Amino acid sequence: MTVALDALASWQVPLYEDLHRHPELSMREERTRGIVAAQLAGDGYEVHEIGGGVVGVLENGAGPTVLLRADIDGLPVQEATGLPYASTATQEDADGQVQPTMHACGHDVHTAVALGAARLLAAHREDWCGTYVALFQPGEEIAAGARAMVEDDLVARVPTPAVCLGQHVLTSPVAGRVAVAPGPVLSSSASMRVTVHGAGSHGSMPHLGVDPVVLAAAIVGRIQSLVSREISPSEFGVVTVGALHAGTSANIIPDRAELALNVRAYREEILDHLVEGVQRMMRAECTAARSPHEPEFELFHRFPMTDNDLMATARVREAFVAQFGADRVEHMEPVTASEDFSAIPDAFGAPYCYWGLGGYVEGRETAPNHSPFFAPDPQPTLRTGTEAAASAALAWLGGAG
Amino acid sequence: MTVALDALASWQVPLYEDLHRHPELSMREERTRGIVAAQLAGDGYEVHEIGGGVVGVLENGAGPTVLLRADIDGLPVQEATGLPYASTATQEDADGQVQPTMHACGHDVHTAVALGAARLLAAHREDWCGTYVALFQPGEEIAAGARAMVEDDLVARVPTPAVCLGQHVLTSPVAGRVAVAPGPVLSSSASMRVTVHGAGSHGSMPHLGVDPVVLAAAIVGRIQSLVSREISPSEFGVVTVGALHAGTSANIIPDRAELALNVRAYREEILDHLVEGVQRMMRAECTAARSPHEPEFELFHRFPMTDNDLMATARVREAFVAQFGADRVEHMEPVTASEDFSAIPDAFGAPYCYWGLGGYVEGRETAPNHSPFFAPDPQPTLRTGTEAAASAALAWLGGAG
Amino acid sequence: MTVALDALASWQVPLYEDLHRHPELSMREERTRGIVAAQLAGDGYEVHEIGGGVVGVLENGAGPTVLLRADIDGLPVQEATGLPYASTATQEDADGQVQPTMHACGHDVHTAVALGAARLLAAHREDWCGTYVALFQPGEEIAAGARAMVEDDLVARVPTPAVCLGQHVLTSPVAGRVAVAPGPVLSSSASMRVTVHGAGSHGSMPHLGVDPVVLAAAIVGRIQSLVSREISPSEFGVVTVGALHAGTSANIIPDRAELALNVRAYREEILDHLVEGVQRMMRAECTAARSPHEPEFELFHRFPMTDNDLMATARVREAFVAQFGADRVEHMEPVTASEDFSAIPDAFGAPYCYWGLGGYVEGRETAPNHSPFFAPDPQPTLRTGTEAAASAALAWLGGAG
Amino acid sequence: MTVALDALASWQVPLYEDLHRHPELSMREERTRGIVAAQLAGDGYEVHEIGGGVVGVLENGAGPTVLLRADIDGLPVQEATGLPYASTATQEDADGQVQPTMHACGHDVHTAVALGAARLLAAHREDWCGTYVALFQPGEEIAAGARAMVEDDLVARVPTPAVCLGQHVLTSPVAGRVAVAPGPVLSSSASMRVTVHGAGSHGSMPHLGVDPVVLAAAIVGRIQSLVSREISPSEFGVVTVGALHAGTSANIIPDRAELALNVRAYREEILDHLVEGVQRMMRAECTAARSPHEPEFELFHRFPMTDNDLMATARVREAFVAQFGADRVEHMEPVTASEDFSAIPDAFGAPYCYWGLGGYVEGRETAPNHSPFFAPDPQPTLRTGTEAAASAALAWLGGAG
Repeated sequence: MTVALDALASWQVPLYEDLHRHPELSMREERTRGIVAAQLAGDGYEVHEIGGGVVGVLENGAGPTVLLRADIDGLPVQEATGLPYASTATQEDADGQVQPTMHACGHDVHTAVALGAARLLAAHREDWCGTYVALFQPGEEIAAGARAMVEDDLVARVPTPAVCLGQHVLTSPVAGRVAVAPGPVLSSSASMRVTVHGAGSHGSMPHLGVDPVVLAAAIVGRIQSLVSREISPSEFGVVTVGALHAGTSANIIPDRAELALNVRAYREEILDHLVEGVQRMMRAECTAARSPHEPEFELFHRFPMTDNDLMATARVREAFVAQFGADRVEHMEPVTASEDFSAIPDAFGAPYCYWGLGGYVEGRETAPNHSPFFAPDPQPTLRTGTEAAASAALAWLGGAG
Repeated sequence: MTVALDALASWQVPLYEDLHRHPELSMREERTRGIVAAQLAGDGYEVHEIGGGVVGVLENGAGPTVLLRADIDGLPVQEATGLPYASTATQEDADGQVQPTMHACGHDVHTAVALGAARLLAAHREDWCGTYVALFQPGEEIAAGARAMVEDDLVARVPTPAVCLGQHVLTSPVAGRVAVAPGPVLSSSASMRVTVHGAGSHGSMPHLGVDPVVLAAAIVGRIQSLVSREISPSEFGVVTVGALHAGTSANIIPDRAELALNVRAYREEILDHLVEGVQRMMRAECTAARSPHEPEFELFHRFPMTDNDLMATARVREAFVAQFGADRVEHMEPVTASEDFSAIPDAFGAPYCYWGLGGYVEGRETAPNHSPFFAPDPQPTLRTGTEAAASAALAWLGGAG
Repeated sequence: MTVALDALASWQVPLYEDLHRHPELSMREERTRGIVAAQLAGDGYEVHEIGGGVVGVLENGAGPTVLLRADIDGLPVQEATGLPYASTATQEDADGQVQPTMHACGHDVHTAVALGAARLLAAHREDWCGTYVALFQPGEEIAAGARAMVEDDLVARVPTPAVCLGQHVLTSPVAGRVAVAPGPVLSSSASMRVTVHGAGSHGSMPHLGVDPVVLAAAIVGRIQSLVSREISPSEFGVVTVGALHAGTSANIIPDRAELALNVRAYREEILDHLVEGVQRMMRAECTAARSPHEPEFELFHRFPMTDNDLMATARVREAFVAQFGADRVEHMEPVTASEDFSAIPDAFGAPYCYWGLGGYVEGRETAPNHSPFFAPDPQPTLRTGTEAAASAALAWLGGAG
Repeated sequence: MTVALDALASWQVPLYEDLHRHPELSMREERTRGIVAAQLAGDGYEVHEIGGGVVGVLENGAGPTVLLRADIDGLPVQEATGLPYASTATQEDADGQVQPTMHACGHDVHTAVALGAARLLAAHREDWCGTYVALFQPGEEIAAGARAMVEDDLVARVPTPAVCLGQHVLTSPVAGRVAVAPGPVLSSSASMRVTVHGAGSHGSMPHLGVDPVVLAAAIVGRIQSLVSREISPSEFGVVTVGALHAGTSANIIPDRAELALNVRAYREEILDHLVEGVQRMMRAECTAARSPHEPEFELFHRFPMTDNDLMATARVREAFVAQFGADRVEHMEPVTASEDFSAIPDAFGAPYCYWGLGGYVEGRETAPNHSPFFAPDPQPTLRTGTEAAASAALAWLGGAG
């Protein structure tokens, strides 16, 4: 398919740059959904809009069904890459706040690559048989999209796959390579919004109030010891306070502080210990501070672990080695991030394989996913991702290949 | 003037409630300025708009000039008093953010009272001689309004006063009383906006970033020891972090945190120690955290100390005892808050006296100034404040009284 | 008495240096007591050993009784003054630990001065009449000595004084001067020993234990906000953690930490708030840390406030002005330290006056009381202290003077 | 050898209890050394005293040399097991402080087991040929003993081994089992003693000093973020402050605080990052506190990583499976603790294998190593350890077996 891939690039790169310029927040991917649906329809897919996402189904004779999932949402990050196609977009979030938006996690790569693989398979029906399902999922960043599609009856509306596939662009391996491994490759994760209460006062009269800024600071400091002291140094565990907001004015003691936290682990019991530990410490610090009300916790964005099927992964790996050569197929180290991808195969009861796609050409300084500087090299990333998606699917569909 | 005061109430209370319903942010007091100017003009004052404020001048024959200053601005606080005339107003602030607004510091009382005193003096010109200057100052809360008026040539545009007077409604003494004392009655104060820098990363990869939330929390905790350990326990000193903002999302480590602080003291060298100590500790915590950039400090809202003139205060006190009886005139304990009032007499080179006006009737639970629950009792507060203003002015003007 | 004072110096300075070289811990002042008793007896006083202290009584005809109290104990501090007469002594403390000892609070000055005044009054009986009581109290540093003497029947065993006098050598005013004021001059104070519990583990297995070092550190940090946020900035209040001990080895997580704290205020309700606040915060931090046992609090060394009698102080002040000239008699600012002195006049129901004695000659760098570098200048300190004691006593006794 | 093992128990258990009752501090193992030397001599070994340890050499014809090392030192821990043979011993440490002592890390098990294996091999010379070297090392806990033996010319004084063996009693697996694995099984580690400087003052005058207790607490809190934020959540790393000491008295602010820390990792660059991070944060906190002197760091106890040889481990594992059955031989998870064992094989240039010995019978609650409650079950622990040592040695020596 080499010739096909070369031809594909002149369509795929501008598509990618357009997607990059127009990131959309989770569960608000109106424009992206439109582009995806139009492309799939144009390539001959039967198109379904399900739970905020789009699914293209291409039946091509008897044979197994393979589902490849891509996520399509951006992040509320102010892009700072300086790329010619950098995003300057903004969008209103669910709270009515206007946010800058950026494809800071590479879902634009995933979308362009999955559309490329869909087009490739549609253009080369003679090489395979079975059913190919191209699934574009919204709201991955907030652990909402996979669930939304499942709740919108995904399982009943599309053919049941023999295997589900997914991939993510990463800072490692280098662009041009893929990385894959059986077993746990992504962590489980939970997010929490917390309000802790003080009592407002004039900044010069702290004794007449309860200072929620000092309280919130004590909490942030204290919970560092969950990771440093309470879980085994051999265990993977992370507690990040990603947002902390309190007060409007230098000389008014506000009456509350709001924190947003994210907690991760590879084992559920560690995740539970961390989540409970955060709550224990917050309650205790509120007591220490004479907080007038209990803290309010809202748990959200609970991501499952991503745990690759042994057999399916062996098959994908074999296909990659055949496609890329062994030196371009690395062993995937477990990644600290999380995904809601596995909710889709779990809904079908299907095995799955999720792999890493190299994003930065060798020698370039890398900015991590979610950074305002995240900027994978379009090529050879797009091409490698497209090849990976297509060759993995053909490992099931390609009996005729 | 008792009869006059009774009559005044039916005009003054609704005026007060209207002002309370329509608070305006500092240096954006459009509507209030209009009301004040109209009232003064209607009472026969020559009206000047100066530096965002309004000055009414009433010449009444030979004699000394007395200036009484009231401040007119509200605060970005969401009112929670439940009063029938509570504010539900909002206003865009200087940064274009829409803020709830509230007269949480009683400047509506000051305005209504000063308009009342102006009307009273205008109505009773037979009782006094000299010149009365009713000055309504904007932007007290941000230490901007007195300076703005001085810079707009206040000194050249109104007669030079023999004395300047000012008052503030407080939770103590009880309503119906005043409190006055010579010497320092209000603290000096400085505010600071600070940005500390981290490096953004995905929440699951803290080692690839520098966490500014942990850094900001360490700063807030650390600077508590400025007051608890570095200044003498006998010295007055306050450091309040009134606002702390970082991040937008639970699972993204942001690249900066922003703090707004307020520092207070009765002595300049203590204020300087605290301001320098805050900067020392912030720089050191940035070093501890491997912050990639120096913190950025912006000092603003430096309020001078309010230090009542010995002789002027004795004269005001005497007038109060004559007006209210000795049991309604208390000794004013130094207040922890600050004012830019003194910038006005200092510009004229005039002595000054600033006193406290009781705001809550005996036995009521009090909410402190700047609290969302701050709610002085309109009466006898308005009446007492009006009497205090007029009788203090007449201590100079009332030769004929 | 100038000639007498000059003569006194050749006896008093070596006596002082000897006392300085041989400090003794609180309630273990064996040697000092022997010297004091011998001196008093030699000067013709009737000597009583009461509650670990010594009282000399000199009856000299009809007239009032005056009691002057000196404290005699040293501190467990390693002297670092480098003085030729510096202490190198050690002593076993109540727990059997050998401690270095130092007169780091100047009780050697008090002892030498009180013995000097006693000698002077004995030598000049012609100048006064009444009864002079020279009281030397043990264990001031631990708030134990005054109570021990009272419990050993002090009131019944010596004549009831018309007034009690006391003084303390301080870094301010300068040597050669005294400072005195009516009202509160020293704070009330309480000390606390606290054990917080962790669970021991190997240093490499923090998750199998509960780290009491991290817990104790969190406590120390947290309680800074008691002073910085919970009491009015206008209130005097201090919380000092003077000692913190945990663990024996770098790689063993110990099972407890021990803290010793001292809390001070000028008002009992503030002292109570601070003591309760310390306990509240400690309990909360133990909860945050999953501490397996409640913390254990032992309150000790509760010192009363020292609150000078108005009339007695006026009389002492007058005597000082007559003795030293007005320029050598300063107004005493309230001192942050505490004393158990007042327990003695309180036991008798007598008024009292307590004053400050300058310890450092002008221009010298001063090390504060309790510092290992505390080193008052023997002269003119000893002479001024002796004059102060004698002239204050004579303000009551010196009818014949 | 079953009969022999049964007979051994009646001698080995009392020997173990005696060792347990008499723990000795690192590099001060006088009594234990005497017992070991006497036993080895009695069993026919040629005995060498080397670097504070004891080596027994038993030549038994042609064949390879095998060295088995046991460590013999106790810890400064107050035993709280309540065992009938619990230690109540104390010993003066290197600083002249009297310390309680306890075999809280099971080196008494190691000693009894290694003496048992030595006796067994001596009693059954007909079953093997070659040379057996029984090495008893002092001072493991402080990373001093292996180095001391090497520096005392160990390599020249005993035959060069083909393999070195070692074992450690652990809370997991259960007693009766062993655990072994190739590759890294123990971490590298470094310890640090640090003095941070304040300035002494009276507890009521914090502003005249610099409080080192608040400084030390800030350091302990701050360095938690080294593990929680600065190293990858996937990396093993530990920072423990095992000891913190400051002050002697509740109301004296001391002039310094002393900390002892231990830092661990499986990779040298992580260890270096942690050690440098601790120093960076300490220096920064000293700056924040206006500390008058730089902190003083003393690095000590740097332990190497223990990294089992692939081939030697396979051979040991095979011997264990033959001896115990496969169900009693577990895979050893990397242990967080460290050892200086590897310095001995490294000195000889020999491969090594180090394994874990189960210490607690199934179902018992376990107290971790270094806890005051650490109490392995003597049986089957001693028997299993003896079998493990002998069978591992015989994997090389037992050609004739």
